[in-house]
Amino acid sequence: MSKSKLTKHSVFSSAGSLNYIGKAITVDPTINLVTYNAETLDSVPCSKISELPAVFSEEMVTWIEVSGIHKPKMIEKLGIKYDFHPLMVEDLLNTTQKPKIEYFPKNNHLFIILKVPNYNETTNEIENEHICIVLGQNFVISFQEQDHVDVFSTIITRLNRVNSKTKARDSDYLFYSLIDIVVDNYFQVIDIIEEKVMTLEREILKEAKNIHQNKIFYLKRELAFIRKTLNPFRDIIQSILREDYNYVSQEVKVYFRDVLDHVFENIDATDTLREDIENLMVNYHSQLSNRMNAVMKTLTVFTAIFMPLTFIVGVYGMNFENMPELHNPHGYFVTLGVMFVLCITLWVYFKWKKYI
Amino acid sequence: MSKSKLTKHSVFSSAGSLNYIGKAITVDPTINLVTYNAETLDSVPCSKISELPAVFSEEMVTWIEVSGIHKPKMIEKLGIKYDFHPLMVEDLLNTTQKPKIEYFPKNNHLFIILKVPNYNETTNEIENEHICIVLGQNFVISFQEQDHVDVFSTIITRLNRVNSKTKARDSDYLFYSLIDIVVDNYFQVIDIIEEKVMTLEREILKEAKNIHQNKIFYLKRELAFIRKTLNPFRDIIQSILREDYNYVSQEVKVYFRDVLDHVFENIDATDTLREDIENLMVNYHSQLSNRMNAVMKTLTVFTAIFMPLTFIVGVYGMNFENMPELHNPHGYFVTLGVMFVLCITLWVYFKWKKYI
Amino acid sequence: MSKSKLTKHSVFSSAGSLNYIGKAITVDPTINLVTYNAETLDSVPCSKISELPAVFSEEMVTWIEVSGIHKPKMIEKLGIKYDFHPLMVEDLLNTTQKPKIEYFPKNNHLFIILKVPNYNETTNEIENEHICIVLGQNFVISFQEQDHVDVFSTIITRLNRVNSKTKARDSDYLFYSLIDIVVDNYFQVIDIIEEKVMTLEREILKEAKNIHQNKIFYLKRELAFIRKTLNPFRDIIQSILREDYNYVSQEVKVYFRDVLDHVFENIDATDTLREDIENLMVNYHSQLSNRMNAVMKTLTVFTAIFMPLTFIVGVYGMNFENMPELHNPHGYFVTLGVMFVLCITLWVYFKWKKYI
Amino acid sequence: MSKSKLTKHSVFSSAGSLNYIGKAITVDPTINLVTYNAETLDSVPCSKISELPAVFSEEMVTWIEVSGIHKPKMIEKLGIKYDFHPLMVEDLLNTTQKPKIEYFPKNNHLFIILKVPNYNETTNEIENEHICIVLGQNFVISFQEQDHVDVFSTIITRLNRVNSKTKARDSDYLFYSLIDIVVDNYFQVIDIIEEKVMTLEREILKEAKNIHQNKIFYLKRELAFIRKTLNPFRDIIQSILREDYNYVSQEVKVYFRDVLDHVFENIDATDTLREDIENLMVNYHSQLSNRMNAVMKTLTVFTAIFMPLTFIVGVYGMNFENMPELHNPHGYFVTLGVMFVLCITLWVYFKWKKYI
Amino acid sequence: MSKSKLTKHSVFSSAGSLNYIGKAITVDPTINLVTYNAETLDSVPCSKISELPAVFSEEMVTWIEVSGIHKPKMIEKLGIKYDFHPLMVEDLLNTTQKPKIEYFPKNNHLFIILKVPNYNETTNEIENEHICIVLGQNFVISFQEQDHVDVFSTIITRLNRVNSKTKARDSDYLFYSLIDIVVDNYFQVIDIIEEKVMTLEREILKEAKNIHQNKIFYLKRELAFIRKTLNPFRDIIQSILREDYNYVSQEVKVYFRDVLDHVFENIDATDTLREDIENLMVNYHSQLSNRMNAVMKTLTVFTAIFMPLTFIVGVYGMNFENMPELHNPHGYFVTLGVMFVLCITLWVYFKWKKYI
Ligand SMILES: [Mg+2]
Ligand SMILES: [Mg+2]
Ligand SMILES: [Mg+2]
Ligand SMILES: [Mg+2]
Ligand SMILES: [Mg+2]
Ligand SMILES: [Mg+2]
Ligand SMILES: [Mg+2]
Ligand SMILES: [Mg+2]
Ligand SMILES: [Mg+2]
Ligand SMILES: [Mg+2]
Ligand SMILES: [Mg+2]
Ligand SMILES: [Mg+2]
Ligand SMILES: [Mg+2]
Ligand SMILES: [Mg+2]
Ligand SMILES: [Mg+2]
Ligand SMILES: [Mg+2]
Ligand SMILES: [Mg+2]
Ligand SMILES: [Mg+2]
Ligand SMILES: [Mg+2]
Ligand SMILES: [Mg+2]
Ligand SMILES: [Mg+2]
Ligand SMILES: [Mg+2]
Ligand SMILES: [Mg+2]
Ligand SMILES: [Mg+2]
Ligand SMILES: [Mg+2]
Ligand SMILES: [Mg+2]
Ligand SMILES: [Mg+2]
Ligand SMILES: [Mg+2]
Ligand SMILES: [Mg+2]
Ligand SMILES: [Mg+2]
Ligand SMILES: [Mg+2]
Repeated sequence: MSKSKLTKHSVFSSAGSLNYIGKAITVDPTINLVTYNAETLDSVPCSKISELPAVFSEEMVTWIEVSGIHKPKMIEKLGIKYDFHPLMVEDLLNTTQKPKIEYFPKNNHLFIILKVPNYNETTNEIENEHICIVLGQNFVISFQEQDHVDVFSTIITRLNRVNSKTKARDSDYLFYSLIDIVVDNYFQVIDIIEEKVMTLEREILKEAKNIHQNKIFYLKRELAFIRKTLNPFRDIIQSILREDYNYVSQEVKVYFRDVLDHVFENIDATDTLREDIENLMVNYHSQLSNRMNAVMKTLTVFTAIFMPLTFIVGVYGMNFENMPELHNPHGYFVTLGVMFVLCITLWVYFKWKKYI
Repeated sequence: MSKSKLTKHSVFSSAGSLNYIGKAITVDPTINLVTYNAETLDSVPCSKISELPAVFSEEMVTWIEVSGIHKPKMIEKLGIKYDFHPLMVEDLLNTTQKPKIEYFPKNNHLFIILKVPNYNETTNEIENEHICIVLGQNFVISFQEQDHVDVFSTIITRLNRVNSKTKARDSDYLFYSLIDIVVDNYFQVIDIIEEKVMTLEREILKEAKNIHQNKIFYLKRELAFIRKTLNPFRDIIQSILREDYNYVSQEVKVYFRDVLDHVFENIDATDTLREDIENLMVNYHSQLSNRMNAVMKTLTVFTAIFMPLTFIVGVYGMNFENMPELHNPHGYFVTLGVMFVLCITLWVYFKWKKYI
Repeated sequence: MSKSKLTKHSVFSSAGSLNYIGKAITVDPTINLVTYNAETLDSVPCSKISELPAVFSEEMVTWIEVSGIHKPKMIEKLGIKYDFHPLMVEDLLNTTQKPKIEYFPKNNHLFIILKVPNYNETTNEIENEHICIVLGQNFVISFQEQDHVDVFSTIITRLNRVNSKTKARDSDYLFYSLIDIVVDNYFQVIDIIEEKVMTLEREILKEAKNIHQNKIFYLKRELAFIRKTLNPFRDIIQSILREDYNYVSQEVKVYFRDVLDHVFENIDATDTLREDIENLMVNYHSQLSNRMNAVMKTLTVFTAIFMPLTFIVGVYGMNFENMPELHNPHGYFVTLGVMFVLCITLWVYFKWKKYI
Repeated sequence: MSKSKLTKHSVFSSAGSLNYIGKAITVDPTINLVTYNAETLDSVPCSKISELPAVFSEEMVTWIEVSGIHKPKMIEKLGIKYDFHPLMVEDLLNTTQKPKIEYFPKNNHLFIILKVPNYNETTNEIENEHICIVLGQNFVISFQEQDHVDVFSTIITRLNRVNSKTKARDSDYLFYSLIDIVVDNYFQVIDIIEEKVMTLEREILKEAKNIHQNKIFYLKRELAFIRKTLNPFRDIIQSILREDYNYVSQEVKVYFRDVLDHVFENIDATDTLREDIENLMVNYHSQLSNRMNAVMKTLTVFTAIFMPLTFIVGVYGMNFENMPELHNPHGYFVTLGVMFVLCITLWVYFKWKKYI
Repeated sequence: MSKSKLTKHSVFSSAGSLNYIGKAITVDPTINLVTYNAETLDSVPCSKISELPAVFSEEMVTWIEVSGIHKPKMIEKLGIKYDFHPLMVEDLLNTTQKPKIEYFPKNNHLFIILKVPNYNETTNEIENEHICIVLGQNFVISFQEQDHVDVFSTIITRLNRVNSKTKARDSDYLFYSLIDIVVDNYFQVIDIIEEKVMTLEREILKEAKNIHQNKIFYLKRELAFIRKTLNPFRDIIQSILREDYNYVSQEVKVYFRDVLDHVFENIDATDTLREDIENLMVNYHSQLSNRMNAVMKTLTVFTAIFMPLTFIVGVYGMNFENMPELHNPHGYFVTLGVMFVLCITLWVYFKWKKYI
């Protein structure tokens, strides 16, 4: 969530400069070449760009699945091979680039950038993985960061299934499936946050404590972070539905409407949680005020009962020679009685005023 | 209102996967087959999908009324029989799906999802029932959850009435009637909440108590919940009015404008209640502040009156050998008099400062 | 302002059901039939619907002025006579229906619903009167509730004037005049509220009191109520200006622009008052805080001055055998002097800290 | 800023009724007739409407400059002479009418209403002067209130200059110049308010005082007042740029874009000041809270140090016969020592807790 | 950030008046004449306007780079030489003019105004430098203020590079490069503010102090300032993308989309920081409240424990003749014991109430 961990954006470099901006990674990127149609499926790992086909079969769907974008040289080679626009390669390498959709008319590339949120168990922070997908004629090229999570493994599993619906369809359906998987990840992360909010709610409604203040602070920020990465999804999917991009068929648009539903569901859930947090904060502050009130009442009752009593005993502690009461044999007991009655009276008064 | 009670959304399943997402129910779904025109009306319960007609009469309106969507197999069979789009069946089964309108051009199905709010007397929470309605050529198929409430029973009653206006009209009027009944349910629920808000208002304006804080918290949430399910109704009805969907005639659109009026009335009432709650909260906090002020004033008056008096009696409690006043025979009484005057003076001062 | 006083909306009745929803009234409705052109004017009261003309003269403007909508049977008859749409009659009878404009193309009826606010002197609340106006070919039919206020009496007076501009014009000018009169009523009610806000402002800026808290509460609600009924006026007039409704001529549209100006002026004034109230509330709370601060300072000064003094006199009240100071003949006076100096020092200190 | 000083709007009068609504003024209005082209300039005062030309020269620009709109009769005569629409004359006379633009197609009159703000030194309030400008074929007629300020005097000066750019151009450039001058006045008034806000800021950031609370209150209102009169300027100028009004040439539109820039600059400055005021208020309240905290700490330190000491001296002031310490010759001094150590300990403790 | 340092805007001057509005500068402006195409590059400093070419070569791109706009006479001469519109020259000279885009159709000049933010190390304030760029046929003329920063030096460096992409392209690419550099500067300034916000966050989350209040105040203002100058960038770039200005080719528009991305990234970062500041402020106030609560509890515990004890010792300090306890030889020790038990009891009670 903080930029400081990343290799810095070299802001003054010229457009299309190919620098990787993201976490330092040492493992080599991996490339998977998947080709399929309704009948066959072929999946081979490639270690070099040169092993990839120069042109794509028209009978089959080709999916080049790249894991790891931290080698600019390699990504640049791939870009040159498939004629990517330099600005597109720049965005591929920049993990701080926000989600967006871009269409390059010269080579008919539809290019989208997405973010997959993951809950990092060790830092207890949400981290965004940078995902890029290129849709062209009969092919899809996907890019993800090289880390312990492989967001697209489910799709591989589905393709391997007998009677796979995905296999029987075109590259646009694969394109949709990849986006759908990314959106599905938000459900998981939002569920984790919802769990946290509900735990906090249970705790605060039972008894607000100082520690809750910072918990609210961090939850609000996490929700703001999620909301901010979700927002562009709406525009991206709506752009796919509205514009008539090459290679996105009318039948697959129905599926994109379904993804849009999921995006809205996630946005909606995030907003509900944000409202819940706001209400919790109001409740937290109300409880603080109430408790302050209670403390003040305790103080007032103690002061108001013992001050008059202390004054009375002070009176009879004076050393005047001529104080008739002191010589009265019942003086002491009468004084004790008067103080007892006064004490009871004040007690009842404050009980009636609801201070006790 | 909380997702945790439901069978979980299996987020990573492929599109069109048919899982029921909702409360666990054991009773079997029931299906009612109603066919009518201006002269005749026929209503028969069906226990199997195969008993339903394969094609619909053109002279009559056919209404298939399904109660219970917790058997995915059965809904799937029905979907196949009437050629429903797989995504439509997925939405039918997913009770967490938000209200929406969807048009499937291939088979000319107009599909809407709505929510009926019900006040659950035992949990004291508002629960949404998942309602789906499909409008096709000469037929309407409606789906509701299997529970103790039958939201569409009123329509059956109206159809059975002599000179029923509904019976004399087309399937689009039935479609409208079902939606209208759903919207009418919001009036009832909002009336219940309004009653609660007014009770709370009467209580708080009389005297704010700690207990009101959580009541405000829960009412705000209920209103946010209602507001959120009402919002999509506006878009759904406006879409029916604006688009020229097959099978929705111009004459019935006048009736949809009337439903839209009711939707706006409900939205308006909800917003008014939300503002009322906000104002109540401000008033609640003002009262807290005022009371705190009163407590502080009591404390200050007691302290400021008894502190000087206690000091004076302390002076004459000192054991110096040479203290002329102590030997004066009127010393004690003069001191008492001075303290009395001081006490009165301070009292008047605080009265004037409005502390008492 | 509260629905509970009204005959309840029978929410589950079918569309076009004719029930009166509003205050219970016993007096009979009155109907006035006014026909005029530039030269003549004829005004006759009618006691029955059957006395009204079946068709309207083309040379003259016919204005049927109905006062009292609490007899559904009568309104229904009128509706049948002039071919009103059933939903229009339903809205005529429903005093909780919000302001709106509706055009029925079949019979070329332009139908608007408005609200006239009246300050009820006894309950000290603003009440809305339900006003409906129908514009057709050469005729206007107006409906108002039967109460002590006749909102359209001014128009009658104008028509009776020599050289009346209204008389010389068409039915659309009469239609405009009726709407204009309704908007003019808002100026009056907003002036009354402005007066109240200014009185409250003068009081609070002088000295905030607990009683102001509830006054703010009720004024905010009144302004929200006015704002909510004013909002639809804007849409109604803008719809008349934008759409080319039959029977509304281009020349009269200039006058509707003038009405729109008045609507905006009223909206503007309401918003200004709402901001004023918000600012007043902030000021009210600031004063509370300041006063709390002053109370705390008083308490602190009393405590901090008398605590050390009481401690000193306590020291010389101890009964130790060996306390040299006690035997010093000036001990008492030196102690008094020391305490005096201490008292002055603390006083100066708190003066400097601005506690006093 | 308060309506109460004005002759009241007679709300129920019919449209086009000619009543002056504004401050009572006794001096007579003045009229100036200015005719010019690139070579010549002629400026004559007129005392009567009849002295004005009936038709306007086509070779020259005619500017009729009216100062004083408090004589409805005179304005009405002028209106009849030049065929003004009755609603236009009504607006001319109504100083409470908001800024707007109106086009009367019948006689090709473009009519705008503006407000010039002036800082009234005596009441220390901003006052709006009502300005109206009519643009027709070869002529401009301007109206301002009769007061000590002549907002258009600068234009006269410019026309009299040798090589005056204004003189060489058409009536639309004069029209632009008048509007530009009005907008320029806002810079001055906003500068005055900016000065006030900065003074207040300097004072509050140094030390918040009770008096600042009302200063904030009045500055917020002034800014809201300015913002509200500036808003319609944007729409008016944008309307001139967008619509193709007769007599406004494409070349002069460039100048109107410049005026629009100035309007936005003023709006921007106003909004910045509003935010500044909001931040100042937050800072003001923070300081109050901090000071309350400091007061409470002082109270607590005094109480917590002297209460235990007073208790100890109280113990040895008891009169029990058998109290061994009292007979110890060092008892008194040991007790003083113990109290001294206790005092230091508590002092250090509160120092560490940052209470002191 | 404050206008008071600048030569004042002479608000009532006529349009196109050529006054410099900005910081007083004494050094002379410098002009650089750069001409290039893919093969050659020529860069010569000019001391006079007359040394500049009267017409621009069609084979090459001409870039006139002006540093220093504080000599109105010189800028005016330049304006006359290249036929600038008078309003354009006025804006060039006015450093308070907001960013905007303007197209002058007569001479096909596309004119934009931008602001470059710089962090002034001495005043610790952000300062905006006024930047203007004119794009015409085969030429670009850029203007910046004469100060220690040369914002365009990077471009010169790039042009001098072997295989410079910029050199091989048209004037529109140079135009884009200049704007891109300006936007890049925002990344730097926002990074500095982000650093400040994070430092403040670390400090406040550790322990809120009074000093943080003013730091929050100034950071909020800085962010508002940045946000306000960033806003118009969005409109300027979107206008370039949407409109088909002469001399801006379709291929270079892809690069402008990239700049737009950067603008949105900056806006987004600013908004995130604003939310962070808001949340920090809430946290700051929560901590204040909590601390106030702690202080009150300390006070209450001290008071409530010592008040009863002081009262008890006061009782046995009374001088009544007949007080049996005083003569009891264990009286003193029993009293001490009772007080000890009372003290422990109250301690436990307040521990249980979480006051300690
Ligand atoms: Mg961030
Ligand atoms: Mg760059
Ligand atoms: Mg990110
Ligand atoms: Mg999905
Ligand atoms: Mg779905
Ligand atoms: Mg949900
Ligand atoms: Mg929920
Ligand atoms: Mg899925
Ligand atoms: Mg739901
Ligand atoms: Mg209904
Ligand atoms: Mg209705
Ligand atoms: Mg209501
Ligand atoms: Mg608050
Ligand atoms: Mg109904
Ligand atoms: Mg109403
Ligand atoms: Mg009017
Ligand atoms: Mg008017
Ligand atoms: Mg007004
Ligand atoms: Mg006002
Ligand atoms: Mg009127
Ligand atoms: Mg005004
Ligand atoms: Mg100007
Ligand atoms: Mg300008
Ligand atoms: Mg400015
Ligand atoms: Mg606050
Ligand atoms: Mg500024
Ligand atoms: Mg000017
Ligand atoms: Mg600036
Ligand atoms: Mg850049
Ligand atoms: Mg980029
Ligand atoms: Mg960022």
